[in-house]
Amino acid sequence: MNYQAKWLWYPGDLEKYHALKQNFSRVERGCSWPAFWKSDGFRQRVVFRRTYRLETPESFTVFGPPGAAGYADVNGRKYPFGQPISCEAGEIRIGLHIGCIGCVPAVYVQGDVICSDGDWTVEDYCDPPVPAASNRYFTEPEQNVAEWPMMETSYAPVAAEEINGGALFSFETELTAELEVNVLSEKEALPLVYLGESQAEALAGKDCYFFCRPDPETRRCPRQAMRYAFLPGYRAEEVSVRAHHRYVDIPVRASFHCDDEELNRIFAVAAHTFSLCCDVFFLDGVKRDKWIWSGDAYQSLFVNRYLTGDKEIEQRTLIALRGNDPVTTHINTILDYSLLWILAMGEHEATYHDEAFLRRMWPQMVSLMDLLMRQRDEHGFTVGRQQDWVFIDWADFDRDGPLCAEQMLLAAAYGVMARYGSRSEKAFYEKEKAALLAAIDCSFWDAEKRAYVDSFTSGKRHVTRHANILAVVFDLICEERKREIAKTVLFNDSVPAITTPYFRFFELDALCKLGYLKEVLAEIKSYWGGMLKLGAVTFWEEYDPSLPLEKQYAMYGDPFGKSLCHAWAASPIYLLARYFAGLQIDPASPTGYNLHPADGFFSQLDCVMPVKENNLTISIRGGQLITKSSDALENREE
Amino acid sequence: MNYQAKWLWYPGDLEKYHALKQNFSRVERGCSWPAFWKSDGFRQRVVFRRTYRLETPESFTVFGPPGAAGYADVNGRKYPFGQPISCEAGEIRIGLHIGCIGCVPAVYVQGDVICSDGDWTVEDYCDPPVPAASNRYFTEPEQNVAEWPMMETSYAPVAAEEINGGALFSFETELTAELEVNVLSEKEALPLVYLGESQAEALAGKDCYFFCRPDPETRRCPRQAMRYAFLPGYRAEEVSVRAHHRYVDIPVRASFHCDDEELNRIFAVAAHTFSLCCDVFFLDGVKRDKWIWSGDAYQSLFVNRYLTGDKEIEQRTLIALRGNDPVTTHINTILDYSLLWILAMGEHEATYHDEAFLRRMWPQMVSLMDLLMRQRDEHGFTVGRQQDWVFIDWADFDRDGPLCAEQMLLAAAYGVMARYGSRSEKAFYEKEKAALLAAIDCSFWDAEKRAYVDSFTSGKRHVTRHANILAVVFDLICEERKREIAKTVLFNDSVPAITTPYFRFFELDALCKLGYLKEVLAEIKSYWGGMLKLGAVTFWEEYDPSLPLEKQYAMYGDPFGKSLCHAWAASPIYLLARYFAGLQIDPASPTGYNLHPADGFFSQLDCVMPVKENNLTISIRGGQLITKSSDALENREE
Repeated sequence: MNYQAKWLWYPGDLEKYHALKQNFSRVERGCSWPAFWKSDGFRQRVVFRRTYRLETPESFTVFGPPGAAGYADVNGRKYPFGQPISCEAGEIRIGLHIGCIGCVPAVYVQGDVICSDGDWTVEDYCDPPVPAASNRYFTEPEQNVAEWPMMETSYAPVAAEEINGGALFSFETELTAELEVNVLSEKEALPLVYLGESQAEALAGKDCYFFCRPDPETRRCPRQAMRYAFLPGYRAEEVSVRAHHRYVDIPVRASFHCDDEELNRIFAVAAHTFSLCCDVFFLDGVKRDKWIWSGDAYQSLFVNRYLTGDKEIEQRTLIALRGNDPVTTHINTILDYSLLWILAMGEHEATYHDEAFLRRMWPQMVSLMDLLMRQRDEHGFTVGRQQDWVFIDWADFDRDGPLCAEQMLLAAAYGVMARYGSRSEKAFYEKEKAALLAAIDCSFWDAEKRAYVDSFTSGKRHVTRHANILAVVFDLICEERKREIAKTVLFNDSVPAITTPYFRFFELDALCKLGYLKEVLAEIKSYWGGMLKLGAVTFWEEYDPSLPLEKQYAMYGDPFGKSLCHAWAASPIYLLARYFAGLQIDPASPTGYNLHPADGFFSQLDCVMPVKENNLTISIRGGQLITKSSDALENREE
Repeated sequence: MNYQAKWLWYPGDLEKYHALKQNFSRVERGCSWPAFWKSDGFRQRVVFRRTYRLETPESFTVFGPPGAAGYADVNGRKYPFGQPISCEAGEIRIGLHIGCIGCVPAVYVQGDVICSDGDWTVEDYCDPPVPAASNRYFTEPEQNVAEWPMMETSYAPVAAEEINGGALFSFETELTAELEVNVLSEKEALPLVYLGESQAEALAGKDCYFFCRPDPETRRCPRQAMRYAFLPGYRAEEVSVRAHHRYVDIPVRASFHCDDEELNRIFAVAAHTFSLCCDVFFLDGVKRDKWIWSGDAYQSLFVNRYLTGDKEIEQRTLIALRGNDPVTTHINTILDYSLLWILAMGEHEATYHDEAFLRRMWPQMVSLMDLLMRQRDEHGFTVGRQQDWVFIDWADFDRDGPLCAEQMLLAAAYGVMARYGSRSEKAFYEKEKAALLAAIDCSFWDAEKRAYVDSFTSGKRHVTRHANILAVVFDLICEERKREIAKTVLFNDSVPAITTPYFRFFELDALCKLGYLKEVLAEIKSYWGGMLKLGAVTFWEEYDPSLPLEKQYAMYGDPFGKSLCHAWAASPIYLLARYFAGLQIDPASPTGYNLHPADGFFSQLDCVMPVKENNLTISIRGGQLITKSSDALENREE
């Protein structure tokens, strides 16, 4: 057998199928809550083709997903799936026809020479043939492509106590686990189990997000974000519980150790937080929403490149977010999330330089850009339609007319399109970008306040940080104006503070780009360090330093609405790696990176970061920088 | 409970889901064979909405398909499906959110006042809200919309004999049945069963299309076209078999009795043939292909209006064929089948006058027309692309350059678009039609042969019947030229004869339109009567009068390749009803029809035909015409 064989599908279909599963998987307090946006499907009928020239007779077997319709056409003759097909030597033209309604149409070909090892094309009866897609997760014929393979590590509770008339079990950290419950006493019914990210939530009865009875066969609850399990009516010794942590195999390849133990701990907890949120796709949080959001995914790219270097989860997420053409609605219904998707495509390409992926996605970048451009007003500003959510952030914007921050994103998106387009596309988008920047300057720059205002139509000249931050982050203005904005906006206490960790990412990034590393480090230590001081084992969706622990769980008007393990809270990984360790991934450089550690922060530093297929060790001892590169696969723990 | 409640879905989704099931259901000789064209899917995420003003408190329960994700939003609060939801009096705003991957997202609302009785809207996060769809088949909460409900009638075999070392069971006619097999002897294994449309096929071993072992639980074989069942290795008394004929409930509302017993029998056998082919959709045949073909469906419309008057199967079929926008490939991959779909839309509207359906489908008519128009050459002739199948018929056309018959269909399609378009569309398509007819006349009319030639580019001036027939059928030429063509083409033995029953439909229709009823009647009696003389219980895909029965089964190079129950063979129903009984359905007329029985054919006639919701009885006695109209539902046998 050829061990290179993998399951094959039409590029994008597996991602779209699993994205539907993911976005429909949210269940809270017994209520299923599918995501509220246009959810695009996968192809239902494809054909895989390849021609071999056999030197000797050969036999092979084709497998499809359960319930799929299909056959193998071998030199014009039909054969069913699942049975060995014998061929004589000579030319063998194979077409694997498959139709599948409830799952991705996929095939696995098992054989010595004839096998699904990658050089197959696939057609969808619409577009010209394309190379079939595969991945490293689906390599065995007995797998079902509908079920993403998970790794499993089992944990015993670290504590058990009796409280509120039941047994409360605690685990050392947050997990995405199937809790197994075995009743040791004479009680017959399986217990009702309350799972919580916090002890308070597990004990909150009907306010707890997840409660269930274990499956009578497996004794397991469904996979769920959890750290605490409460079983009312049971004593601890009456039951035995184990948490089977299940996760997608995406190894963390980075570590960070400096002479500041708090920073080391922040990096480690951020890494655990981010790892939990790296599922089949980048998720916003593991308790909630478990949906694929473009704005959250955009920030995840920055962390992911330093933590796992896994480009596949980025591509899966980008494909899943974008859906199918024709595009009529914005990603997650949000105007700025469409723009951030284009910016994410640019970030991804700048990091991994995957030309084939870029070319494949390019038509979808253009068509999404077309939608954004169709929504422009007479000044060239993109404006939300009635059905669009113009978000940017939870903040009090002056939303009269076009919003300045959206135009900053649009200018940056033009830049991405110009960078990766053909010569004529480059000229086209560069011209659009220049015209837009001029229009922004003309309409939104307040010469008196020395800042960009939200709206030029209301006359209120209201300044928020957002547009100004984005102008810095995306390098849309000259250095002089950046310095000016730092003073007039970023360090101006009369401009309302950023309140969400989501936009704090952009703000801290802007501060770092402007060289305010000391201020950023202080903020990392106070904000993320503050969570650690409250006992956080993962970083939270939001944190208000002024509140005690018991008031930290509420959000969105729900007593336990806050996600305690949220991807965007992992941004210290990016900030520490990019600006303090000073590592910039650069596929154009011969080493694949540029390294300029910040001066004066660490007398001692030992960290490892992924750079392409290598792990780069960066050490500082007595002001001396030492680097070492080693093959990542060799170091990988199995 | 309100007994008006039905399952609801987004218009078109149920049809597209079941079309996938249908087109993927073909299994022959153990090999599954999904249809080889672009197969469009259904929406996966929709929301149904309605607002009530309750005078008293009320409770209702929402049901979704198995495995669906979703919840009921009632005045902003979430409730799970499957559990009663209580409301106080007052305004109740309901949103039923549902996501479903493997099946149509559908809901059923059970309650006294709040129920899914039709006045719901549905949204797909893309287009504005539309009225939710339902049908008469899905009215019970415990139904699964993935399984189309079937009626069942059980048949005992009419004969059993021992032959070729096994037991052969015969049924009185062809059925689409689940064969139940009970073994009465001591033998333990369930028998292998060979099913045949003909005795020869059932006995043909590996050449037989369908063989299977009954399901051990139900003792039933899968639903299959069959008249004969052969059980090798069994004696007739060792087994008991019953055929459970399963069919979609579409009552035949027509009958035809005249003083020619052969014609009566032809009508009855055609009716049985057609009924078997009326499944969820119009099928080409029940043994083969069981696919939804546009050309076949087009002809089925003509029979269906006289036999069942069921407009729903027509709409299901038209929706299923058309699939989704953007349209990039032709229906069933065939250029002329796209044109016939537009013509079918026109036929459907002319028969049922369903303005709402026409308006719903109109954008898809326009976009398909756009595709056809994008493929035009400099003369305005539509030309197949490399991926298109330019079919028209199995005939030796001169295929150099544009094919004349395609242009005739295009001109007729322009006519449909002009008939149903807005004022500006009407003018546009009328202009296109006039220009095309002029171009056809200029390029394809051979002034010497007094006939349309296939190709004007090859210089061969090759005449086939097809384009000439279509010019008559679609009334594209003046009466004088029609008469001329009758002589130079239709009754000219040097022009190759039509060999397929598919195109014979158009030819006989043309002859009828030209008044050659005597010739058509003779043909009906010789061709269809010929099949009866060979013992046909259903009409065949093709019939060569020169061959004995045992040579009739082969087709497409396969010894049993011919379908013995094929929808297009039911056309005598249309010909007899339309031209001999003389009934023309006309929604614009006050009675809904025009009736002009042909003179001189029947001294006695008793027939019943559906006209809207009524059954029209047409009797001729001694040259006197008597009609009677009665409510169809009252006469319906349950």
